Amino acid sequence: MTSKKLVNSVEGCADDALAGLVACNPDLQLLQGHRVALRSDLDSLKGRVALLSGGGSGHEPAHAGFIGKGMLTGVIAGAVFASPAVGSILAAIRAVAQAGTAGTLLIVKNYTGDRLNFGVAMEQARVEGIAVEMVVIGDDSAFTVLKKAGRRGLCGTVLIHKVAGALAEAGMGLEEITKRVSVIAKAMGTLGVSLSSCSVPGSKPTFQLAADEVELGLGIHGEAGVHRIKMAPVDQIVTLMLDHMTSASNASHVPVQPGSSVVLMVNNLGGLSFLELGIIADATVRLLEGRGVKVARALVGTFMSALEMPGVSLTLLLVDEPLLKLIDAETSAVAWPNVAKISVTGQKRIRAAPTEPQEVPEATAAGGEASKQMVLVLERVCTTLLGLEEHLNALDRAAGDGDCGTTHSRAAKAIQDWLKEGPAPASPSQLLSRLSVLLLERMGGSSGALYGLFLTAAAQPLKAKTDLPAWSAAMDAGLEAMQKYGKAAPGDRTMLDSLWAAGQELKAWKNPGANLFSVLTKAVKSAEAAAEATKNMEAGAGRASYISSSRLEQPDPGAVAAAAILRAILEVLQIQRA
Amino acid sequence: MTSKKLVNSVEGCADDALAGLVACNPDLQLLQGHRVALRSDLDSLKGRVALLSGGGSGHEPAHAGFIGKGMLTGVIAGAVFASPAVGSILAAIRAVAQAGTAGTLLIVKNYTGDRLNFGVAMEQARVEGIAVEMVVIGDDSAFTVLKKAGRRGLCGTVLIHKVAGALAEAGMGLEEITKRVSVIAKAMGTLGVSLSSCSVPGSKPTFQLAADEVELGLGIHGEAGVHRIKMAPVDQIVTLMLDHMTSASNASHVPVQPGSSVVLMVNNLGGLSFLELGIIADATVRLLEGRGVKVARALVGTFMSALEMPGVSLTLLLVDEPLLKLIDAETSAVAWPNVAKISVTGQKRIRAAPTEPQEVPEATAAGGEASKQMVLVLERVCTTLLGLEEHLNALDRAAGDGDCGTTHSRAAKAIQDWLKEGPAPASPSQLLSRLSVLLLERMGGSSGALYGLFLTAAAQPLKAKTDLPAWSAAMDAGLEAMQKYGKAAPGDRTMLDSLWAAGQELKAWKNPGANLFSVLTKAVKSAEAAAEATKNMEAGAGRASYISSSRLEQPDPGAVAAAAILRAILEVLQIQRA
Repeated sequence: MTSKKLVNSVEGCADDALAGLVACNPDLQLLQGHRVALRSDLDSLKGRVALLSGGGSGHEPAHAGFIGKGMLTGVIAGAVFASPAVGSILAAIRAVAQAGTAGTLLIVKNYTGDRLNFGVAMEQARVEGIAVEMVVIGDDSAFTVLKKAGRRGLCGTVLIHKVAGALAEAGMGLEEITKRVSVIAKAMGTLGVSLSSCSVPGSKPTFQLAADEVELGLGIHGEAGVHRIKMAPVDQIVTLMLDHMTSASNASHVPVQPGSSVVLMVNNLGGLSFLELGIIADATVRLLEGRGVKVARALVGTFMSALEMPGVSLTLLLVDEPLLKLIDAETSAVAWPNVAKISVTGQKRIRAAPTEPQEVPEATAAGGEASKQMVLVLERVCTTLLGLEEHLNALDRAAGDGDCGTTHSRAAKAIQDWLKEGPAPASPSQLLSRLSVLLLERMGGSSGALYGLFLTAAAQPLKAKTDLPAWSAAMDAGLEAMQKYGKAAPGDRTMLDSLWAAGQELKAWKNPGANLFSVLTKAVKSAEAAAEATKNMEAGAGRASYISSSRLEQPDPGAVAAAAILRAILEVLQIQRA
Repeated sequence: MTSKKLVNSVEGCADDALAGLVACNPDLQLLQGHRVALRSDLDSLKGRVALLSGGGSGHEPAHAGFIGKGMLTGVIAGAVFASPAVGSILAAIRAVAQAGTAGTLLIVKNYTGDRLNFGVAMEQARVEGIAVEMVVIGDDSAFTVLKKAGRRGLCGTVLIHKVAGALAEAGMGLEEITKRVSVIAKAMGTLGVSLSSCSVPGSKPTFQLAADEVELGLGIHGEAGVHRIKMAPVDQIVTLMLDHMTSASNASHVPVQPGSSVVLMVNNLGGLSFLELGIIADATVRLLEGRGVKVARALVGTFMSALEMPGVSLTLLLVDEPLLKLIDAETSAVAWPNVAKISVTGQKRIRAAPTEPQEVPEATAAGGEASKQMVLVLERVCTTLLGLEEHLNALDRAAGDGDCGTTHSRAAKAIQDWLKEGPAPASPSQLLSRLSVLLLERMGGSSGALYGLFLTAAAQPLKAKTDLPAWSAAMDAGLEAMQKYGKAAPGDRTMLDSLWAAGQELKAWKNPGANLFSVLTKAVKSAEAAAEATKNMEAGAGRASYISSSRLEQPDPGAVAAAAILRAILEVLQIQRA
């Protein structure tokens, strides 16, 4: 079976992809009748050297993504993984020549087809009197014994586009650019690794790997690599890659040594997750620095892909300061990343954690008395919740994942542990804030976050005062925060239902001369009634909202728990009064 | 079985990926003890509003790739697809506050966990007296009937990072930025499509699709979408997506109409090839413009991924000129692309093909006589090659893919057809140039390119003169070009062996008074001997170089063909003389 692809037609792939790139990049134009993209400001390049590159399609964003001021003048694309047509290469050379450029450098990846087709076009253009030169890039470090065909052209080619582009932009002549670039191209190496193959549209994948195998030293056309290794942690794989690329016994190695300065490219071969790309980048920088190599710049992204191949290639280019300036030069090419113009190695990568705010004694700070009452309240809440664990879990099994009791028990145990650790703060505001942090860290789930929010918000009105109006305001603030972030409203069959019902009653505390106990008693009863009433509600938020209402015949466990907490508070206060 | 991933450990994924991003971007720092990345120039932001975002990992380059001048101040990352810890969010808020920033805006994607955890941290920070606001982004256009939870936050969030970043950089205050951004965030929609699911490290893929199915309207955590559709051409799929996103009957639609101006994002969900991404971008721009929508900017790349999901999301943001200025504002964020600051719609996307050079009459242009002789030579070469087809194919079967005879026959037939079309050019230089073009276009394979190269180069010395020294120089030039681009040397068991042997003899033509026939006869004999000698050669280039030499017991078919061509030329000239 052929691979699944998002295309219009197999034969139109290369044309459509290039058309899309040009359509989305108004700095580019297609050359009529050819699979060629050129800078649309071509006519402003009079007297400058033009840079053309290209090759088979399937390596996007290479090469057309690297067209722009400071990089390529244009690109000739072949069909997927096939060399471009000689006629199109020649048309591109003629187009840039007729725009008045001062000669053309062809930057070609070392593949027989590309070398021949670009070569023929160059010879024909020379016959027409156009000054054309060619550099053939071979940065592959896979083969330890060199074939006559030489090293393959891989992702390092993009660095040559950049360097040549900076030189051309600076006004350098054709011969000099060719000479400079040829030298620079020799000081780099690239090696790839992949989790599986890729497939050309309309075809099957080009090779198969077992679930525990990784392919090393592959090209960018789905061809198999030089080794097949067992899956290993990234650090081991990158170590193996760096050893292979830099070993003097490898005829195609790049001579990176302790003290060397390099530009590193971490190139997604197409289908690797960027999470993994970051992990590989981390390992590569760490391991290079561990070898005493200075990473001057690190480019991480998709530069030269092999369709959807889930793999990565590493490129190392030996650099000095003048070369770095060329890498850093401005470019408008859309696929060149915003690289910071400072060295990767040598930067401080960690910032000290911020200082935590000092707890300031509050105006209402009280003695041990209040604190003792608070402790009794908390202890009763905890034993209540622990006693309800099985009941709450049973209620939750009907509508959620059956862990509501467990979650509340976890909160209860966390509070019990905390109470054993030392005295609870005397001020109600501080107490609620501390409980908030505790539940956020230890209760877990959305309930933990919602109680945390409730308590954080509720603590605020209690900073200045702790009278009955302040406690009612605290309830209001908590409810508001819970609704704001949890997106549940009263009637949505959540813990909010009981708390909200209680809150409405507690507003009576704001009236002058209001009674603590009569109001609180009404609030608890109202909360319990609201919890019971959730039986008949359709879930509007939370996990239960995905369950058909006909299946919800029990009250919401979160609402039941909240009512039980309020009942526990009332009972302790009544005992204390008695 | 769990998925294959390039990681060091499942539990360390998120930390390692963020560390890699920070290591490779010296403009960033990690916050000690937290999964938080911040601008390293934080202390230069005194008096400006700080922008923090974040969420689960697995969406790289979001969000840390969008930290930089003109975009985010920092990012808090959770584990893969999990909300960040409240403590880390609070630490980030404290860090930017302690650096002297003038308040913090939290840009949060609309997911319950993110909303709650960022919400709690905000409430806690406010308790500490830090000015913090929050905007919750919901740009999902998948659900036609709105859930209470609201629209999910998807790739459009990155545009909000950009817009908010530009406003903060311009010195706008917290309240005003919050207000502006909240309005802008309502004018966008995002919809995704994918060829298959993704898998969290250590887990299995989250859903399965048949080979002819595509998932529509999915989120960015591997959750299934709202529709499963049959595979179709990209134009049909994009049409369906645009219909769904912009239909007024969809409660979460973006009201794009004829005349609207939009910013388009074509976002790789992770594992789609960039070839396909370009094809989708092409279709989307074309179809939007077909609806009368003006595409003001188009961003194509990987912005908000779902690990390695092979899919794409489209985002449309309604824009006016002031908003475009914010999109265009400078940023140093590494993952923001180099977008041209001009409209996509309305540009001329095609450049006229270059003019072809006029054929100028050459100094040596001769009458019908020479041309007639040339025609006889060519005819004999063609019949010779046609007669050799089976023999050459048989020789090639031992070492290559058995088509050498077929390739040479194709060339012969092309020449025969061409000769019937009209008179061949009289000048040898023009004749060889025309033959070169013909073989490049019609012969195919490396042989076609190599003969094309040979003839193009050989034509040059014959422009000025056509005497015997010029013909010897032509042979030399052809051989040089063939070696240069084909990378074969004499002795490598290729067609070059016979041609090179002949060329050495033809050098005698450069001596004064040299005889045409005696030299040519020696050259042909030498070529035939060289062809025969390839029997004993190890292949050094071409396809046969991958075959063990012990299996090569026949001469190289390319060398045999070249010798036969030379013999045919000699025979015709001898007959003509007689």
